[in-house]
Amino acid sequence: MQKPQNLDPAVEARARAGFALQGLMKTIGAEITHVAAGECRIEMPFDAAFTQQDGFVHAGIITSIVDTACGFAAYTLMGESSGVLSVEYKVNFLRPAAGEKFIATGRVLKPGRTLTVCSGEVTAISKDGENLIAAMQATMMAIPRN
Amino acid sequence: MQKPQNLDPAVEARARAGFALQGLMKTIGAEITHVAAGECRIEMPFDAAFTQQDGFVHAGIITSIVDTACGFAAYTLMGESSGVLSVEYKVNFLRPAAGEKFIATGRVLKPGRTLTVCSGEVTAISKDGENLIAAMQATMMAIPRN
Amino acid sequence: MQKPQNLDPAVEARARAGFALQGLMKTIGAEITHVAAGECRIEMPFDAAFTQQDGFVHAGIITSIVDTACGFAAYTLMGESSGVLSVEYKVNFLRPAAGEKFIATGRVLKPGRTLTVCSGEVTAISKDGENLIAAMQATMMAIPRN
Amino acid sequence: MQKPQNLDPAVEARARAGFALQGLMKTIGAEITHVAAGECRIEMPFDAAFTQQDGFVHAGIITSIVDTACGFAAYTLMGESSGVLSVEYKVNFLRPAAGEKFIATGRVLKPGRTLTVCSGEVTAISKDGENLIAAMQATMMAIPRN
Repeated sequence: MQKPQNLDPAVEARARAGFALQGLMKTIGAEITHVAAGECRIEMPFDAAFTQQDGFVHAGIITSIVDTACGFAAYTLMGESSGVLSVEYKVNFLRPAAGEKFIATGRVLKPGRTLTVCSGEVTAISKDGENLIAAMQATMMAIPRN
Repeated sequence: MQKPQNLDPAVEARARAGFALQGLMKTIGAEITHVAAGECRIEMPFDAAFTQQDGFVHAGIITSIVDTACGFAAYTLMGESSGVLSVEYKVNFLRPAAGEKFIATGRVLKPGRTLTVCSGEVTAISKDGENLIAAMQATMMAIPRN
Repeated sequence: MQKPQNLDPAVEARARAGFALQGLMKTIGAEITHVAAGECRIEMPFDAAFTQQDGFVHAGIITSIVDTACGFAAYTLMGESSGVLSVEYKVNFLRPAAGEKFIATGRVLKPGRTLTVCSGEVTAISKDGENLIAAMQATMMAIPRN
Repeated sequence: MQKPQNLDPAVEARARAGFALQGLMKTIGAEITHVAAGECRIEMPFDAAFTQQDGFVHAGIITSIVDTACGFAAYTLMGESSGVLSVEYKVNFLRPAAGEKFIATGRVLKPGRTLTVCSGEVTAISKDGENLIAAMQATMMAIPRN
């Protein structure tokens, strides 16, 4: 696991600007609440507009926030002229996505010039406390920008 | 791969009713366009409200439609008193999610009393034609209902 | 799915030579029984030296043959000066690995200059017939040589 | 992550006995060097008999030791009358498997009556020090024994 380090404010600004461009994050009311070198945290409130048939948050939305957290975690370690794209990910769902707030954390396991491997998790906050509900392992790719 | 078979109309009705209960599918404008024994197809239009920073549909939304397609594909082979939950999935993203319409197909690879393994794919429809943009391998679980 | 095409005999020769260099494939008695453009098939006999605690072939050995099949399937579509390395894979085990012979097939889902995505499966041959026992989704990477 | 706890000696004995039954672990010279509640560590030496075409340990063998570590980690939290089977796993390969010794660690992320989710990693020990070479996310299943 990369130790979180002080992040160049310009990199943080680029990550936050990238996040702001994601239509989906705005739509679901997600916020980026922490960004460090190789780390990113994203939070979203519960909203019935994004549920599955049992009233839990849809697995794909839980996936969306932890994918975004992993993507920007990777992005903080990429060069200035790179964009980031999800190559693949795997998610295990540990408990139903019940709660009032959901916190996704992405961390870089192994940075690379082209590919960066990340580990992510999602915690649900409810009256019962905090529960780990999902774990992700993902590959992100640096895409040259011009 | 299970050969698609005639589906008991009551099972199809239950699958369509379950789909109608998904807040997320309504929110993104998705429709279930085909359901057979061990198979399900879901379509959604492009909408900038569900994009990532480059204007492509967010990986998590692409994941949502193919997860739902796999989930209901599995559900068609489960008993009447079962619900379905995603245990885990893995998605490879083959091309950026650019297009006007996205079609997700889920198929049962191996049904089981408790666990059902599915294979899914997503195709993007654009002026350039049809392109396979994502492939999923997923485990679904039957949950007893009362 | 790439349609299998006629394969340049020089490419086939390089794939077979690469396979012959794998210490593991020799140790487990595996053979490459088919190679085409974007496709590779590998077979191995049952051997108690490679089992888990219940006497089935170990999941990691089943993984080894389908990883190798996917790797050489990808390799057939890469340039002459490339090697191939497994970036990541996911395997679902559909049935216990019981049988006398195991046949792994790898196919390219999406070739790429750097990354190639493959789909693989393993079938067990026993007195009960042929059974699909494992499904893989994998990313292979082209590695520049010399 | 489950905190490692004191393990009932009878459970440890059952885990070590299960390990001893794995033909593959004996064949590759692997040893179980640590077992605690929800944790297991397995070590193996480098051996050219288990390599891929570049002389690194084959991805499938690296997978085998971390799958076994995850399997027995899960097993320590299952009931006395259960066996354990791998349902699925995903592995990211972070660096080539070069080294003299390989250490796989499996830990339970979420135990369950039927399914247990584990996280695993493999470290290579060489003259260059210790390097994380692979990360696994796996689902294990409790199988009733009689």
